[in-house]
Amino acid sequence: MGDIGENTGFDLVVTNGIVVTASEVLSLGIEIGIKDGQISCLGTSLTRSPHTHIIDAKGGIVTPGGVDSHVHFAQDNSPTGDNFTTGSRSAIAGGTTTVLAFASQLKTEESVLPCIQNYHTRAKDLSYCDYSFHLILTNPTPKIMSEEMPLLIKQGITSVKLYMTYEPMKLGDSQLLDVLMAARALGFTTMVHAENSDIISLITNRLEAKNHTTPYFHAISRPQIAENEATYRIISLAELTDTPILIVHMSSEIAMKHVRKAQTRMLPIHAETCPQYLFLLSERLKGTEQDDFAGAKCVCSPPLRHDPNDLEAMWRGVANGTFSTFSSDHAPSTYDHAGGKKLGVKDGVMRYRNIPNGVPGVETRLPLLFSFAGSKPDSRLGLPRFVQITSSDPAKLYGLEGVKGNIAPGYDADLVIWYPDNHFPGTGLQIEQRNLHHAVDYTPYEGMRVRNWPRITVLRGEVKWDRENGGLKGTAKDGQFIKRSLGRIVVGRTGGEARGMMEGERGFWS
Amino acid sequence: MGDIGENTGFDLVVTNGIVVTASEVLSLGIEIGIKDGQISCLGTSLTRSPHTHIIDAKGGIVTPGGVDSHVHFAQDNSPTGDNFTTGSRSAIAGGTTTVLAFASQLKTEESVLPCIQNYHTRAKDLSYCDYSFHLILTNPTPKIMSEEMPLLIKQGITSVKLYMTYEPMKLGDSQLLDVLMAARALGFTTMVHAENSDIISLITNRLEAKNHTTPYFHAISRPQIAENEATYRIISLAELTDTPILIVHMSSEIAMKHVRKAQTRMLPIHAETCPQYLFLLSERLKGTEQDDFAGAKCVCSPPLRHDPNDLEAMWRGVANGTFSTFSSDHAPSTYDHAGGKKLGVKDGVMRYRNIPNGVPGVETRLPLLFSFAGSKPDSRLGLPRFVQITSSDPAKLYGLEGVKGNIAPGYDADLVIWYPDNHFPGTGLQIEQRNLHHAVDYTPYEGMRVRNWPRITVLRGEVKWDRENGGLKGTAKDGQFIKRSLGRIVVGRTGGEARGMMEGERGFWS
Amino acid sequence: MGDIGENTGFDLVVTNGIVVTASEVLSLGIEIGIKDGQISCLGTSLTRSPHTHIIDAKGGIVTPGGVDSHVHFAQDNSPTGDNFTTGSRSAIAGGTTTVLAFASQLKTEESVLPCIQNYHTRAKDLSYCDYSFHLILTNPTPKIMSEEMPLLIKQGITSVKLYMTYEPMKLGDSQLLDVLMAARALGFTTMVHAENSDIISLITNRLEAKNHTTPYFHAISRPQIAENEATYRIISLAELTDTPILIVHMSSEIAMKHVRKAQTRMLPIHAETCPQYLFLLSERLKGTEQDDFAGAKCVCSPPLRHDPNDLEAMWRGVANGTFSTFSSDHAPSTYDHAGGKKLGVKDGVMRYRNIPNGVPGVETRLPLLFSFAGSKPDSRLGLPRFVQITSSDPAKLYGLEGVKGNIAPGYDADLVIWYPDNHFPGTGLQIEQRNLHHAVDYTPYEGMRVRNWPRITVLRGEVKWDRENGGLKGTAKDGQFIKRSLGRIVVGRTGGEARGMMEGERGFWS
Amino acid sequence: MGDIGENTGFDLVVTNGIVVTASEVLSLGIEIGIKDGQISCLGTSLTRSPHTHIIDAKGGIVTPGGVDSHVHFAQDNSPTGDNFTTGSRSAIAGGTTTVLAFASQLKTEESVLPCIQNYHTRAKDLSYCDYSFHLILTNPTPKIMSEEMPLLIKQGITSVKLYMTYEPMKLGDSQLLDVLMAARALGFTTMVHAENSDIISLITNRLEAKNHTTPYFHAISRPQIAENEATYRIISLAELTDTPILIVHMSSEIAMKHVRKAQTRMLPIHAETCPQYLFLLSERLKGTEQDDFAGAKCVCSPPLRHDPNDLEAMWRGVANGTFSTFSSDHAPSTYDHAGGKKLGVKDGVMRYRNIPNGVPGVETRLPLLFSFAGSKPDSRLGLPRFVQITSSDPAKLYGLEGVKGNIAPGYDADLVIWYPDNHFPGTGLQIEQRNLHHAVDYTPYEGMRVRNWPRITVLRGEVKWDRENGGLKGTAKDGQFIKRSLGRIVVGRTGGEARGMMEGERGFWS
Repeated sequence: MGDIGENTGFDLVVTNGIVVTASEVLSLGIEIGIKDGQISCLGTSLTRSPHTHIIDAKGGIVTPGGVDSHVHFAQDNSPTGDNFTTGSRSAIAGGTTTVLAFASQLKTEESVLPCIQNYHTRAKDLSYCDYSFHLILTNPTPKIMSEEMPLLIKQGITSVKLYMTYEPMKLGDSQLLDVLMAARALGFTTMVHAENSDIISLITNRLEAKNHTTPYFHAISRPQIAENEATYRIISLAELTDTPILIVHMSSEIAMKHVRKAQTRMLPIHAETCPQYLFLLSERLKGTEQDDFAGAKCVCSPPLRHDPNDLEAMWRGVANGTFSTFSSDHAPSTYDHAGGKKLGVKDGVMRYRNIPNGVPGVETRLPLLFSFAGSKPDSRLGLPRFVQITSSDPAKLYGLEGVKGNIAPGYDADLVIWYPDNHFPGTGLQIEQRNLHHAVDYTPYEGMRVRNWPRITVLRGEVKWDRENGGLKGTAKDGQFIKRSLGRIVVGRTGGEARGMMEGERGFWS
Repeated sequence: MGDIGENTGFDLVVTNGIVVTASEVLSLGIEIGIKDGQISCLGTSLTRSPHTHIIDAKGGIVTPGGVDSHVHFAQDNSPTGDNFTTGSRSAIAGGTTTVLAFASQLKTEESVLPCIQNYHTRAKDLSYCDYSFHLILTNPTPKIMSEEMPLLIKQGITSVKLYMTYEPMKLGDSQLLDVLMAARALGFTTMVHAENSDIISLITNRLEAKNHTTPYFHAISRPQIAENEATYRIISLAELTDTPILIVHMSSEIAMKHVRKAQTRMLPIHAETCPQYLFLLSERLKGTEQDDFAGAKCVCSPPLRHDPNDLEAMWRGVANGTFSTFSSDHAPSTYDHAGGKKLGVKDGVMRYRNIPNGVPGVETRLPLLFSFAGSKPDSRLGLPRFVQITSSDPAKLYGLEGVKGNIAPGYDADLVIWYPDNHFPGTGLQIEQRNLHHAVDYTPYEGMRVRNWPRITVLRGEVKWDRENGGLKGTAKDGQFIKRSLGRIVVGRTGGEARGMMEGERGFWS
Repeated sequence: MGDIGENTGFDLVVTNGIVVTASEVLSLGIEIGIKDGQISCLGTSLTRSPHTHIIDAKGGIVTPGGVDSHVHFAQDNSPTGDNFTTGSRSAIAGGTTTVLAFASQLKTEESVLPCIQNYHTRAKDLSYCDYSFHLILTNPTPKIMSEEMPLLIKQGITSVKLYMTYEPMKLGDSQLLDVLMAARALGFTTMVHAENSDIISLITNRLEAKNHTTPYFHAISRPQIAENEATYRIISLAELTDTPILIVHMSSEIAMKHVRKAQTRMLPIHAETCPQYLFLLSERLKGTEQDDFAGAKCVCSPPLRHDPNDLEAMWRGVANGTFSTFSSDHAPSTYDHAGGKKLGVKDGVMRYRNIPNGVPGVETRLPLLFSFAGSKPDSRLGLPRFVQITSSDPAKLYGLEGVKGNIAPGYDADLVIWYPDNHFPGTGLQIEQRNLHHAVDYTPYEGMRVRNWPRITVLRGEVKWDRENGGLKGTAKDGQFIKRSLGRIVVGRTGGEARGMMEGERGFWS
Repeated sequence: MGDIGENTGFDLVVTNGIVVTASEVLSLGIEIGIKDGQISCLGTSLTRSPHTHIIDAKGGIVTPGGVDSHVHFAQDNSPTGDNFTTGSRSAIAGGTTTVLAFASQLKTEESVLPCIQNYHTRAKDLSYCDYSFHLILTNPTPKIMSEEMPLLIKQGITSVKLYMTYEPMKLGDSQLLDVLMAARALGFTTMVHAENSDIISLITNRLEAKNHTTPYFHAISRPQIAENEATYRIISLAELTDTPILIVHMSSEIAMKHVRKAQTRMLPIHAETCPQYLFLLSERLKGTEQDDFAGAKCVCSPPLRHDPNDLEAMWRGVANGTFSTFSSDHAPSTYDHAGGKKLGVKDGVMRYRNIPNGVPGVETRLPLLFSFAGSKPDSRLGLPRFVQITSSDPAKLYGLEGVKGNIAPGYDADLVIWYPDNHFPGTGLQIEQRNLHHAVDYTPYEGMRVRNWPRITVLRGEVKWDRENGGLKGTAKDGQFIKRSLGRIVVGRTGGEARGMMEGERGFWS
């Protein structure tokens, strides 16, 4: 029949699911037709050919594969953490099909190209899921900004991360401005870790002088005001230069309010939060009776906050659209080292300064948030909002629009198939370290219960995780490096030219 | 071939367009397959059957048919305005395929059922586009709220409108609260016209005493503070009762900020603005040298504002998500009456009090906003945001989710096919009254230029407007009454139970 | 000696005190010279004549006599409360030398003159302290506003009070606006009780339907949002009409923030709070094990709030200048009636609706606040601020500038002489009902400790209270009716003409 | 008569004036009795002795002598500006009796003692008015903070100034924190020049690259956002360390709002503005047709702003209490140098970088503000507020309470006697450079009109300026160095211990 098009020959059809996109919950009966690793068709009663494979979603929810835009794999500063293989298999088992990891320049390096090459080596053929890199810039020389960044962009690395804190990494305002001006010119996306370094140093030195060095004091040493100030400052620098930014891992309500106000004014200020800032409080840093070192497991920066109101505020930011990305900031270290050496203990003394910052979370990220998505009495966000913040918005922000992060024709066929609501009776499923796939020896969410878990994870049309049939299906050769386009502004100004009261003045110098 | 499904036999395939949904701009090459008036399939290379009709979108943009959730057709208080036939044909010619008009209870009526019946009669077989009604409640008796509203909801009328101003219609706080409590119990959607009636009366009386009665004084008589106060008040009542509302036709920046703050706190406070508040200023009320009565053409409430900053603020609300709906508030009256009688003139004296409030706009609504959508230097909102605010969000808010307002399988095949960008050379197309299809004799946008215009409008799979082939294709029998479900909250709380500081107290009495 | 002036012949010199004015803490050694009931001189080493009486302040603090601008004496709606004699003697014993009480119009009265005359009769020769009246307007007819108010102003009654709640008293927006426009024209001061009446009715009716009628539900029935809304509304009406107001007895943080924002914009919006909103929480409404009716003692409106944060917020408003007056709202009723009848109990059922609203406090007002004034570690406000909020600002606001409220030459010699700091050892002095001078049978502050108490109260140069020498010295014939001038704006616009964005518009109608 | 005290023998009595204190406008008839250079008595009908000198204020207003807490005299970086003699005579002629000038540490200096000694030498016996110094800290070594600051405090120098901008002076956050922690411990007052240095450098470099170097670009190079950011940052550091600060010479509305919000929260954040930010706009930087260099006369930092709204906002801050001090920041340089060399011109090219920042203003400060004080239709602030912001609050803030800044017994007899209102007919008196007493050759207020001017200035009981009798009466030996006490908090927390959410945490490290 000459009028039969190409779309009949699907490799895979996912049927009988409730398909959730970034804007809609489609009714049962909408099928996804997949061909050559891409979504070819979204429709009713799709045509099967003899070689079409069928997945019966059994009334469960189908979401896009997760895009975790903030993970640390194989970084030198966390030698006992995950490498690409262990981290990415953990990702796949938790429904994440794309990770954006970091390639970190040393302050002494005059070129970033070897560093990028190095990280390609660490990932190539070693990842279960698709991946790309953000470049951590610790020494943004004029040469790098004007010559190497254009090259990187061509190679599909279109985002950088800057630190306002941590001695070995932090940039001063002048350097931040230089990078923002380059971002304005070249169009790459800029991520910023916003905490005031000098505030933290002041307190840390004074705490140390009083021998307050256990993990709990990590939270004391980095008060909200350090985050609030740095957040206000980087927003100011971004407004001055009219450049989009993303502020990573926010934890403080006041800082978040600065972001929200900027967004209200249509400034392109994006923000991210992470599971730890929705679920965990600083009391976790105090250790347990059995193990007074255990607080070391929850040392991250910004620190876990003291007050439940902070958690509540972050939830509100997740729901009301202040946050564009919800990522894991997966950056764990093994707690119990070989030989009984413990995290952060040196010469028998526990010093929070010595604990590598970060918690594991790439696998638990989606299930934790999904438990509060939908329209149950205790839901916090709608299902389309869940898709936005975990998949489609990070994809857009980091140059993966049209490829990753949503369920639409032309997109990579990355999917998560969840169980039907109420599949797990009672209060759901318990998170246990022994069921996770990362390389570290704990999860801060041990014993917490989630309502659902990815039943099946599909990467470019192939099942890589099937919870009921042996779990992991894929191999570390599955993941591909994804060349990214320039990112898109997700909140704030839309047109190609900025507007605002500064515009007249800026014309003279920018 | 036994494996050929039903989806091969499309009635219509729209090809070669850039399909825009509420979340995505799909790449050229994605086709829309339509069957039985619904979107059956979204995909690449869809299969045509011999009887499949093809529309070549010629590289233009394809958006969902517009949902104009605020039009006044055939209302008794605007006897020289549009009826369903003239109004709906104007809608279709401007890309709008669904209108929500009003059925207005009289203060003296103890039942709303006759009124609803009456409006069914005014619309049935008399509309070019699909339609439903909001019920204007001017006398919300306990019987109506407890007995008739459940009935109406069953009949698919799931929204009411309340007035805080206009003597014949306004409700006091106590009545507003009664309706909100009923809305909380029954789930219907509540729209509110928020202006402080007593402020307006005070000024109007004093202006009249000074013989300030020309149309310009209409704007003086309804200052922003009247809108700001009423907006704050209705938000308070909605928060108290934990009930979603939509505040219609907002025009004041401060009022809008109240909405934004409420949304930040996750209160389900929705808001609407209209073309007149994006494009027109109160100077339009001053008339012209040729015709000092001409200001009467632009009398609407809230009035056109004095300051360009107000327009700018409303644009910001459109872009940053504060507004969930952008509707026309189409409520015109014929300016030049037969016999030389002019609007608002009685006994030779022009009294703005006598001018029926409202401007025409159902046909120009989409082209005006579309001109500023996309990513051109002067764009104000992205294309998916255009779809949200003109189609998908009003559909969700008013119980049309899954049926109207987006391009996805299972939805009604209501589409607008626009020309490719830059089809109209130079500054675009001029708006002229003589090209419009409403029954009144002017447009306030006369002479303004737009960049694009609906080339083709498709209603449930059939072409009803083809600009290049004779224009209107449909008839007044095309439009159907749409039974609506209960609306969905588009901003604010997600779960089935409210959260917040009042909750503990509310438990005692609600 | 021909060059000896009149100021040598002081009737009274107060020496050896730390004199506190509205702006300064003067050093020990500054003396107050008094003649003919007025402060004649403030200086060092004042000349004594043989007939000069000396008060040795013994190193204590000397403040102006308190001006309590909000007391209810001899009102018909609290038949078991204080009359002028019992109320004013309580005032004097607590350091208050001037009270502003209320004369209350009935809704049925077409003239307010009889009512004023009536209250003159209730007070004349019956008060220990000086007094004046505010007029409560419940029926502001045009005749009263245009003819009687000018008369009253001439008679020295220059302020009115309006209610937005309480059925027998409340005014609608239209009436509020009429009074504000008259205040703008005539210059009298307008006080407003701001709570949304319909909100309260809704909840009250629903609580009653569920038999929630004990005193605690009084607090449930008047949520903060009722105060917040009404406060925003009355500020809007005052801004529209460009008229100063004072919002009485504020208790809610959000409402207070509305006031603060208005003040920041230089609107002449004044506010008042009372001791009960600094010290008492709604748990006081729950009664005790011994007496489950006891909650009735603390029923006032707005109600005591649930959360300590509310108290903290009011303290902040006292200290940061948001509040211009701190008054008692003394409005008590006897708890144990003759014959065992208890407050609010009817037919054996306790109904909070039946409890007259109000608590006693005219005597404890100054000692309670003074305990937190100064620069002790737990101080909340400076001593000059104490003088401002308890004496000089209410005096200015209500037309007593130059006469009452401060220590300066030309002012009435109304003084409070406190003990030196630390006179009372340990945690200070316990408040006990048996030591108070009002006519009711309880104080809500029973058992609380204060750091100081007026040692001596001087009214127009004469000692009327001497705690160590028999207590009350005066008689009910001491107090005089004080003819007041027009009040002065204490916060907000300064010049005779308003400024602001509305000005241009307002010109057309005001 | 043995009972005649000491207060009869006044050296001077000021009579017939309207005495204004920081809280009151006293009625005509209140006299000021002065003895030994101090105010001995404030009262009616003061006793004259034969040697008492009388000043008849002729119905004019009497205010305290001005305290200008921010002047630059004899600083090395403005070699062509005023020295103490010319600057202080200009002060006296403008009603200012006390100036606080700066002693500036060089970054290379390890001790501040020589610098202080140096400035003592520059001032001693060379000043017409009383004076003290603030220490500019550019290198706050631990030794200076712990050893020298206590010494300086003993010597009566109790305040420091810090710069966040200007390469030779600026401190980083870490240094700012060190000084604040020392201020917390020692109690000295900290002033901060808050502009983000790196923002200014970025723009300056880019402007220079485009040859934008004329004075107007000075305003472009220091946008409001640089002030806003630095203001927010220093408030954060002050909050963290719980230390009072004063932010000098504010010019930006948003920055001012940060201050106001902090004050609302009772943080002890003080702020200052100056005449130039109330009266002058950046257009003054553009020069004139006659002299395209003339813009150099108005180069100051922060720069004059572009928008009249900025002026309006600063006026609002003056009136609503946000600003605690209104000072001149007198820092002029001679415009026409000997030999035709002009300000900022090097090698024939005008470079705004080369123009010493600052304008003259010590003489015009009081008359300019006084013109808008009172209750005339265009008044902006009341007379007591005028006294607060120009005299009494700076006196309190900088440790002169009880000595300078108010009219009360025990205070230095520093007075300004103004003409009666309407003494100057029509629009008042014109400001002309030829009538001023500074050493520079221009005033930016040339040609502006003021309503009044100090008729007589009294310093410690002696007339030093008598406008109608020869003008300057004093000599450069009149002025004394004033040993200051520790300053007092004028806004914000009152008690000795801070409160706030950080308190718990701060306990661990502070």
